Amino acid sequence: MEKPYVIGIDIGGTNTIFGIVDARGVILNNDSIRTWDYPEIEAYIAALTERLRNMIQQAGGPELIKGIGVGAPMGNYINGNIEYAVNLPWKGIIPLAKLISEMTYGIPVSVTNDANAAAIGEMTYGAARGMKDFIEIALGTGVGSGIVIGGHLVYGHNGFAGELGHVIMRRENGRLCGCGRHGCLEAYTSATGVARTARELLEQRSDPSLLRRLDPETITSKDVYEAAKQGDALSLEIFELTGAILGEAFADFIAFSTPEAIILCGGLAKSGSLLLDPIQRSLDKHVLSMFAGVKLLISHLKESDAAILGASALGWESKG
Amino acid sequence: MEKPYVIGIDIGGTNTIFGIVDARGVILNNDSIRTWDYPEIEAYIAALTERLRNMIQQAGGPELIKGIGVGAPMGNYINGNIEYAVNLPWKGIIPLAKLISEMTYGIPVSVTNDANAAAIGEMTYGAARGMKDFIEIALGTGVGSGIVIGGHLVYGHNGFAGELGHVIMRRENGRLCGCGRHGCLEAYTSATGVARTARELLEQRSDPSLLRRLDPETITSKDVYEAAKQGDALSLEIFELTGAILGEAFADFIAFSTPEAIILCGGLAKSGSLLLDPIQRSLDKHVLSMFAGVKLLISHLKESDAAILGASALGWESKG
Repeated sequence: MEKPYVIGIDIGGTNTIFGIVDARGVILNNDSIRTWDYPEIEAYIAALTERLRNMIQQAGGPELIKGIGVGAPMGNYINGNIEYAVNLPWKGIIPLAKLISEMTYGIPVSVTNDANAAAIGEMTYGAARGMKDFIEIALGTGVGSGIVIGGHLVYGHNGFAGELGHVIMRRENGRLCGCGRHGCLEAYTSATGVARTARELLEQRSDPSLLRRLDPETITSKDVYEAAKQGDALSLEIFELTGAILGEAFADFIAFSTPEAIILCGGLAKSGSLLLDPIQRSLDKHVLSMFAGVKLLISHLKESDAAILGASALGWESKG
Repeated sequence: MEKPYVIGIDIGGTNTIFGIVDARGVILNNDSIRTWDYPEIEAYIAALTERLRNMIQQAGGPELIKGIGVGAPMGNYINGNIEYAVNLPWKGIIPLAKLISEMTYGIPVSVTNDANAAAIGEMTYGAARGMKDFIEIALGTGVGSGIVIGGHLVYGHNGFAGELGHVIMRRENGRLCGCGRHGCLEAYTSATGVARTARELLEQRSDPSLLRRLDPETITSKDVYEAAKQGDALSLEIFELTGAILGEAFADFIAFSTPEAIILCGGLAKSGSLLLDPIQRSLDKHVLSMFAGVKLLISHLKESDAAILGASALGWESKG
């Protein structure tokens, strides 16, 4: 009999959330710990796997679990390590898959980064079911991506492929990006990039806007969304600018792998047509005509579940 | 017994060349016809397949031929068609694989574009033997590309993926490209792009150069190469500018698929270190540090053989 469950673990800079998932994408049970409560990796693994073992026993035992998938910053699918993640407590190279598997009855553990996990989750349970070729773009604090070609996630030669947040969109006077370079897609179209666009426009101009009621230093992309929904012209313009750059970027991505669809997930994707419409306009303008017709979609996974579901989907690929 | 031979056909805007190839990449016999001598596709197929049948009989008969591979502009691997190729005599959609196969004993025929064929040839017989992840960049009249991920060529959802000559490198005041858009990689780094850079610099400036002895309107990238080899400062600067843009582009390509190597082929690739060194300097400067170390190589296939070898390599993938 096929084993009926997988476990998904999402390691974030704040929380680590995890749950048991069935083949239809139902989360049967979930739990979390605070990542930074454990500055030592040994203590973190001990706390995490104690909860996991309880969860596994409640589900009926390890023989029912096909695999454990982990989404983590700088998670490397090829070797199962986390390598030099800047926003996690543990420095250097952490053999995460090995450490977890040793403490969870030897169940096979696969690791990748969160955007790749989101793409596999989308293919297994979401908007990309049945698709062989698509690109998942995660618009969150940063811009992540997971590229699926021929039904397989692209990991590349070193296990870290698919960093589309770091293609250069502005080569002259580009914004400084967290990676230390200038002009990256992420610097413009992440949630923080959108907030930065808001601050720049508010400072450069004097036209009225609902955003002027807020402290510019603490404006978030959600504030811009709320104002845009109320018809605020400046906020709508921010979505137009953000969508324009995404459309330009997508035209280049399509020249690379010509997916069936580009699927947006992450907090900013909840803006729906406020963001999709400007992207579509820009994409139509910039895409090579032979590549017209690529679908632009919003993730079908509920954001609260997406991280666990994405990571868990990796578990189905296990040989265990 | 495994069938010992394949046939490669390269359909160019001027000539169609074809030959029989063995598993080690030796071309046993080759021939050619002039593409534009046959404005009607029926006459072209008749002339081509008559030569092919002779070649097949000389080699010992159709039962020794595993497959026929064709490299052609706008060749679509998924359906075997040539679709709306602008520099071939036949308009619209041409069911090329079907037409050839019907006239050559039903041997399976696969079609792709020339840069994809070059990539498969490189993987089968050349610098990419043993590689699972690499990008072939063809620097000729245009800039073509073939992307291999996990040992498979990327055809994309519509069969035309991998048009890296048409990613946008200059979004402000970009050069007009043959595709009708502005700022494409091809507009700067194809052989014609290099000649255009030469004409622009000669016109904008007055410093001496060996190139000033030539009629600016007929300068070719080969002239620039010859002058650079003799130490001509302006020509060396043209290679520096060309390499700089290629290095910027490669940094983005690496963020996408993180190949083991990027391999250059086509006429301009014969410039060797004159082009490779500037590309490497630019790539080192622009690549995200987590992706450092991707190899930059020149094709190992002799240019005179590359087109037939590349197309022929597709034949080995046939089920026939």
